[in-house]
Amino acid sequence: MRALNHPRAEDLDLATVLHALGDPVRLELLRRMAAGDEISCSPEGLIVARSTLSNHWRILREAGITATRISGKTRLISLRRAELDARFPGLLNAVLGEATSILTEL
Amino acid sequence: MRALNHPRAEDLDLATVLHALGDPVRLELLRRMAAGDEISCSPEGLIVARSTLSNHWRILREAGITATRISGKTRLISLRRAELDARFPGLLNAVLGEATSILTEL
Repeated sequence: MRALNHPRAEDLDLATVLHALGDPVRLELLRRMAAGDEISCSPEGLIVARSTLSNHWRILREAGITATRISGKTRLISLRRAELDARFPGLLNAVLGEATSILTEL
Repeated sequence: MRALNHPRAEDLDLATVLHALGDPVRLELLRRMAAGDEISCSPEGLIVARSTLSNHWRILREAGITATRISGKTRLISLRRAELDARFPGLLNAVLGEATSILTEL
């Protein structure tokens, strides 16, 4: 059960998805989700203000890139990989091939 | 000879490229350049203010997506396809596979 609004797969828009991915912090979040597991909305090692991070998650969710699940006091976030791959074949692979960790190297 | 500044291929940044592509007008411009020919900076059939269009071209050029060549009073613009494909393999193909003409259908 999802408590937050998520766009349907058929409503995903390429420009919106690219815009959502076009940010170094959001690319880093994407990379961390790429393994397929749910991750915490406050991942370790990111030097980003909580409100800024919350905004990044919102942009990713509203673009249809992520699914957010509320578990107690935590939000768990996962990549909507299958839906994105079906809608925009090759896009995530191309982006993740390049989206190396740029923030954790700082 | 280029009169405008263009980033070097090795300086292209994925987040910047994705952000530049994350706009419906710029996706339409990309699609029009995809055949490989130079196109005019004022392509037909786009209902976009000249100043807005100029800004879109600037964003694409500064991201390293396009090369602008000045010919008399005209600016001719082409896609830096080979450099983008080398730097971000598969990205343009994935984007162009989806970047159908959304503005000319209006």
